[in-house]
This record gives sequence, structure tokens and C-alpha cells, in this order.
Amino acid sequence: DSKLKIFSLNSNYPLAQEIAELMGVELGKCSVKHFSDGEIQINIEESIRGCDVFIVQSTSYPVNEHLMELLIMIDAVKRASARTVNVVIPYYGYARQDRKAKAREPITAKLVANLLETAGATRVIVLDLHAPQIQGFFDILIDHLMAVPLISEYFKSKGFSEDEVVIVSPDHGGVTRARKMAERLKAPIAIIDKRRPKPNVAEVMNIVGNVEGKICILIDDIIDTAGTITIGANALLENGAKEVYACCTHPVLSGPAIERIQNSVIKELVVTNTIKLPEEKMIPKITQLSVAQLMAEAISRIYENKSVSTLFD
Amino acid sequence: DSKLKIFSLNSNYPLAQEIAELMGVELGKCSVKHFSDGEIQINIEESIRGCDVFIVQSTSYPVNEHLMELLIMIDAVKRASARTVNVVIPYYGYARQDRKAKAREPITAKLVANLLETAGATRVIVLDLHAPQIQGFFDILIDHLMAVPLISEYFKSKGFSEDEVVIVSPDHGGVTRARKMAERLKAPIAIIDKRRPKPNVAEVMNIVGNVEGKICILIDDIIDTAGTITIGANALLENGAKEVYACCTHPVLSGPAIERIQNSVIKELVVTNTIKLPEEKMIPKITQLSVAQLMAEAISRIYENKSVSTLFD
Ligand SMILES: Nc1ncnc2c1ncn2[C@@H]1O[C@H](COP(=O)(O)O)[C@@H](O)[C@H]1O
Ligand SMILES: Nc1ncnc2c1ncn2[C@@H]1O[C@H](COP(=O)(O)O)[C@@H](O)[C@H]1O
Repeated sequence: DSKLKIFSLNSNYPLAQEIAELMGVELGKCSVKHFSDGEIQINIEESIRGCDVFIVQSTSYPVNEHLMELLIMIDAVKRASARTVNVVIPYYGYARQDRKAKAREPITAKLVANLLETAGATRVIVLDLHAPQIQGFFDILIDHLMAVPLISEYFKSKGFSEDEVVIVSPDHGGVTRARKMAERLKAPIAIIDKRRPKPNVAEVMNIVGNVEGKICILIDDIIDTAGTITIGANALLENGAKEVYACCTHPVLSGPAIERIQNSVIKELVVTNTIKLPEEKMIPKITQLSVAQLMAEAISRIYENKSVSTLFD
Repeated sequence: DSKLKIFSLNSNYPLAQEIAELMGVELGKCSVKHFSDGEIQINIEESIRGCDVFIVQSTSYPVNEHLMELLIMIDAVKRASARTVNVVIPYYGYARQDRKAKAREPITAKLVANLLETAGATRVIVLDLHAPQIQGFFDILIDHLMAVPLISEYFKSKGFSEDEVVIVSPDHGGVTRARKMAERLKAPIAIIDKRRPKPNVAEVMNIVGNVEGKICILIDDIIDTAGTITIGANALLENGAKEVYACCTHPVLSGPAIERIQNSVIKELVVTNTIKLPEEKMIPKITQLSVAQLMAEAISRIYENKSVSTLFD
């Protein structure tokens, strides 16, 4: 009988803490600091021999720092004779570099998968990958959880009447995600169809589907600079929408994002805590839901060798 | 007949530029930037199909940023159908984490070797590794160059009379390096022998060898916070040395280093340019020698498939 150990690195300690509390365990003791020259110094401060170890780390900003922390921790855990090295990555950074869009580009999402395996990860648990194909970048076991149920429950609790709501995908790539949410809310979907009539001419936004007089909920996996989502919200209002909500799993929120959201027509932005938001990004318009329960459930089932697949959507 | 291409990443552009000039080639065109969220964005802007590619990058501060730049670039070069992917790492970061000194520590120097191989490096060229054993961490070809000849020539040019000079190792680990330099300068060696008589009692410095009335040259591979070297210099003067010079290959110079050197009894500190020094660290006491000629020679020989071993010491 092996023991369960959960460790948190520096990207999202509050989430790891919440997961551990829900599972009734203490976080494992480890120190993750820097030497004077900026090199990462990790020491695991309790025995983990023969244990099933879960390391919680989002590869969010600063991504290279957080990724190296994770790789070095995996190395340390492996060398400390853990039985399994399970890596819980609520937000998988570099996921948008998942193909060569131009010649001579790297495929960093695949590189990261290889680095995690090389370091010694034996299993990976992720949530809402930018592209589900990234699962196939791994040769080790991977569990791919979904935040749509969590986000859908939150919107259900608002008590909108069913025929009032439309779920909107901000682009063609997100239609599957929008459909999943629409099924749960028994709502129709709409799609924002961006077209550039000629090169160097402003994009035109067409709305595919009916949004007139409706409460629109825009859904995306990542909101980064918030350009797509705030421009999309405008287009919806211009096409007669009554009000616009937005939601995403991963609040990257870099550069002008907070200012854009603040000044946008979006009534409320619902995100999860896969990425820890610094104080200054916690504006009243943003509601943050916790994925801790979902993560805790997944970790428990993996530890008890039960199926995780019912958590997939 | 394959073509040679040299690319520089962001850690040490001036060194890469100097190497390329000495070899009579232009640096390859590539853009290494960041997306808004801090993820690295690399694009190689010329064809490298079938080429022998050399990527010049020190994994110096900020080490995790520079290491990830290197790994992503290797991935891009490999996917762009290069014939060989040669990685020139003048300063190999994380080299001091080369063994488990305590239980449950990582061996990051080995992890980095594995990551470079996984990304797709086919050969590695390094200079003065903290421990020569790190060569064995690689399964791919590795060439290990030495800066001792370069540094020795500089001190020879000062015209000290032979029986005036002593080469001093600041600790037991560095004796081999001190001996190499001593042979070139036809000088004897001395060793600083630090002992802690009891726990929590100050260290005592004994000098093994004769330094009385001598010009001492302290030599180390890395000078980081400069504690060892400045305290060692004091001990030498207290033991009757006439004056103290210091030298090292890799000027990490973190934290209090510059202040300590500035205020120390060291007359001159001789370093190389494996690590690019920011303006504020280029104090008059520090002389920086260039390893560009050595690196260029190694790259030429590797490209022409000739032996590099005469560059080893
Ligand atoms: N961190 C990033 N920030 C912005 N764009 C990115 C980032 N990483 C990759 N990309 C680009 O985003 C595109 C992929 O996004 P998508 O079409 O939404 O899958 C690719 O063309 C990438 O070059
Ligand atoms: N970046 C670093 N800065 C300071 N000490 C380090 C660093 N990396 C590793 N170490 C420690 O330095 C010791 C190895 O140094 P050495 O005995 O000189 O080979 C090990 O105990 C490491 O824990």
C-alpha cells in the first residue's frame, strides 16, 4: 500500500492548498527557492520513498521559471524513489504553439510534453488544453479534465430563462466548446465569423445565429490580451443582443487585458483559478470559480486506481 | 557539401557576433521575442535545410529564460531539417547542481543535459565545466574547451619574473585547474585550506605552500558572490603575499560580488566573456578576455570534421 503526497510549487499555492484541504491531507514539505545567481534550488523535506506523488504547478507567467521549477521538482521526486510521479498542470502554457503555422517555427507544446517525460513524469493531469490534440503529444498517461460543467452550473444559478440565453463562440475554433456549454444550459449557439475582405482592410464581424434580444455568453478557453472577446462583445450588442457575459477557463490576462475588460460592454467575466490572479487583476467585473473540487476528485480517483473519464465532460 | 550557419540567441550576442566575424560569416537570421504573456516566440528567418547549424547561447542569468530559448530554438532548427544541431554553451548554468549533496535533491546539471538531447541537439560544445564529469551526463558528442591557456597568456604578458609568481587554488576542488595554469607560467602552486574547527565556529584559513613575498594569482572556474575569492585574497596577504591577482573563466558575479571585489585587496580580476557583463559590472578592476577565437577555432574544426582535442588544454 503506497502513500499519497501532494506538493505545490510556486505558481498557484492557494489552489494546491485548497485541493489538499478537500482531500484531508497536508501539502508535502519542500523548499523551492533561488540561489543568488537566479538558479532554482529545490529540496524535498520529507521522505517520499514508494509514494504516489502529485505535483501541482501551472505553467503560467513567468512560464519559463514555472516550467523549470516543475522539471527540476520532477527530477528530485524521481531520484527520491517515489513510486509514481504525477504532474497536475491546471494551466498548460505554450499550448498555442501546437503546430507550425509558418515555416521554421518550433512546436513548443510538443517540446514541453517531451521535457516532462524526460524529466521523469509518469502521468499528467491537465484541464482544458487549448487543443485536445495535445493529449497525443504525450506517450505517458494523460487525463484531460473540463471546466465547462463548473462554469455552466454558475450561469445556471443566475436563473436566466432558457429561451433567453445564447452561447457564443468568439471564433470557429471554439464551436465544440460552445456546444458543450449550450447542451448543459439547453441554449442555442451562435458564432462570431471574422473575415478580412482584403489584406490590410479591417476585419468584418458577422454573427452566425440569432442574438437579437438575447443574453449572450461568450466562451473561450484562454483570455489573453482580451482583444477577441471585447471586440466580439461589441459586435453582439451591435447585432441586437440584450447583454453580454463572457467566460473562460484560463485567465492569462496579459498586457492591456484588464483595461480592455474594465472598459468593455461585458457585464461579467467568469474565469477559474487555474491561474492565480495577482491582486490588481481581481477587479469586480471578474468572478473566479475554483477547480479545486474537480482536481481533488481526479487525484483521488487516480490514486485509488478508479476511472477518471466521467470527469472529462 | 553542407553549409555552416551560426545563430545567436539573447544571452551573449556580442560574443556570437565576434565568433561569426572571425569565421568570416554572417550570423543567421532569426527572431527571438516574447508574446504578450511572456512565452518565447522564435522564428528562423532563412532556410537551414541540410545545414550544419551552430547555436550560441550561455545559460547565464536569467538562466531559465535562456535555457528555454535554447531548447525551443533547438526544436525549431531540428524541425527545419538541419543536418546537425550543434549547441555552443560558453557558460553551462546549473553546473554546480551536479550531484546529490543532501537527500532528495535534484541533479539539475544532468537534467539539463537530458533536456538538450530530448530537444534535438546532436553535439554540444562547452568551456570549463564546473566538474569535468558533466561530460559524462551526455550521450551525444561533447567538446570541452579550456580557458586556462588564454588566461595564462594574459598573465605571461605582464612580464612577472618566474620565481615571483604563485598560482593559488581557493579550495581543494580547484587544484587541478591551478596546476594547469602553474605549468604554463612555470610557477609553483599553493592551496587555501579552509577548516571549521567546530560547528558554528568561524572557519580558519591555512595556506598550504609558500606565498611569502610572492605575487599570488588566485584561480577559480566560477566567481559568483565573490566571497571565497575575496576572503582568500585577505588570507594570502596576511600570510605575507606581496600582491594578489584573481582570475576565473565565468564571471557570474551575483549579489554582493561587485561591491566585494571593489572593496577587496585584489589588484585585478581577469575573467572571460562567456557571460556578457552588464555595464554596471564592468568596473576598472575587471579585465575581460575574449574566448571568441577559441570558440571559432572549435566550430571550424567541428564543421570540417577535424579533431578538436588540441583545444582541450
Ligand atoms: N503565447 C502566445 N500568445 C499569442 N499568440 C501565440 C502564443 N503562442 C502561440 N501563439 C500563436 O497563436 C497561434 C495559434 O493560436 P490558435 O489559432 O488560437 O490555436 C499561432 O499562430 C501561434 O503563433
Ligand atoms: N547556483 C548556485 N549557487 C550557489 N550554490 C549552488 C548553486 N548550485 C548549486 N549550488 C550548491 O553548491 C554545491 C556544489 O558546489 P561545489 O562544491 O563547488 O561543486 C552544492 O552543494 C549545491 O547545493
